[in-house]
Amino acid sequence: MTIGVRRRMGVEERRQQLIGVALDLFSRRSPDEVSIDEIASAAGISRPLVYHYFPGKLSLYEAALKRAAEDLAGRFAEPQEGPLGARLLRVMRRFFDFVDEHGPGFSALMRGGPAVGSSATNALIDSVRHAAYAHMLAHLGVTEAPARLELVIRSWISLAESTALIWLEGRRVPRAELEIQLVHDFAALTAVSAAHDEDMATLLKKMVKDEPADGPFAELVGRLGTLG
Amino acid sequence: MTIGVRRRMGVEERRQQLIGVALDLFSRRSPDEVSIDEIASAAGISRPLVYHYFPGKLSLYEAALKRAAEDLAGRFAEPQEGPLGARLLRVMRRFFDFVDEHGPGFSALMRGGPAVGSSATNALIDSVRHAAYAHMLAHLGVTEAPARLELVIRSWISLAESTALIWLEGRRVPRAELEIQLVHDFAALTAVSAAHDEDMATLLKKMVKDEPADGPFAELVGRLGTLG
Repeated sequence: MTIGVRRRMGVEERRQQLIGVALDLFSRRSPDEVSIDEIASAAGISRPLVYHYFPGKLSLYEAALKRAAEDLAGRFAEPQEGPLGARLLRVMRRFFDFVDEHGPGFSALMRGGPAVGSSATNALIDSVRHAAYAHMLAHLGVTEAPARLELVIRSWISLAESTALIWLEGRRVPRAELEIQLVHDFAALTAVSAAHDEDMATLLKKMVKDEPADGPFAELVGRLGTLG
Repeated sequence: MTIGVRRRMGVEERRQQLIGVALDLFSRRSPDEVSIDEIASAAGISRPLVYHYFPGKLSLYEAALKRAAEDLAGRFAEPQEGPLGARLLRVMRRFFDFVDEHGPGFSALMRGGPAVGSSATNALIDSVRHAAYAHMLAHLGVTEAPARLELVIRSWISLAESTALIWLEGRRVPRAELEIQLVHDFAALTAVSAAHDEDMATLLKKMVKDEPADGPFAELVGRLGTLG
């Protein structure tokens, strides 16, 4: 029995090692371009042994993606204390850290395509979006979101994705600027929605009320005030 | 020769009719759920005759999608005269008309998935985004966009897509509100970027300068000003 348990542990360890190696390779290049041979070689094992643990590249890709998805979803977690603007900025920094680390793989995945656009990968992407959405609701102290708030949060998450994807193309704008800009964008999208809806206006007032004068939200409001 | 030409016209007409029938069906339900039998029946021809014109459902789907893509790209065209805010609002109305007409098919396509996420469909989606981007540059009177402007326009286009997709889920917010909100969002994203960059600030000033006091941009600036 002990030996059996130990053997299963060994299998799991090897699987985890392979997933790590694969994630590293799938992150650095488009997954289409990564071969099982390369993964085997990077892991220091034979190609048949890789197949012993994973039936094929797609299953290894999905396992690697699952790990990356859990990692990314975790980056939206943040103690729900202190000013919201500063919290969101820390989240955006961790988000861009992730995007930076997994650049080519992130692009290939999010742009879809024959090799990476399976329903399993789509479900993983949705699980990350859902986790990010749930974290945002918690940060805002809201348990059930009215339709307009849901729309603002979810469309902002999609804005963060597309901003990161465009940034990855040539990194022509400093990422620190985009991190703070996305925090500002969240405030701006909320403000636009608040202009049309009383509940959103109430939420916005709550959001900016506790912000320090030197926080990202106050800074934006000050700057926008000078544009009129 | 005349007969030959006429015969080719007949083939082309039949193809166009089939594309129209297919687009209608693919728009109203997820493309996965539409069968060749159904398309044949809606077109009033036999199943083998459909295969005479198109090798399979995928090629018919791609042809239908191409027509829809051209239609959608055309909706961003708008005479480059008059205030920008009003122009963008007309564009957003036509965009939501399209989304409304093609709801389920649009959702299935944009969310990707096994049947619809081919590289040909991705290329068509990109062609529409590119056309929308080019129209936006033209509206702004810019020939070559600096990195930050490119980022604002492209991320706003993605925001319009995600807003429309979320709207389609339950239509819980009146579409007219989202149309004007997306125009405001464009101004807000530009304003956020302008807070970080002088070129963007210059562009923003040019954008709002010619806006009438009762236009969508002026309205937003007024409302944002009251937030401070």
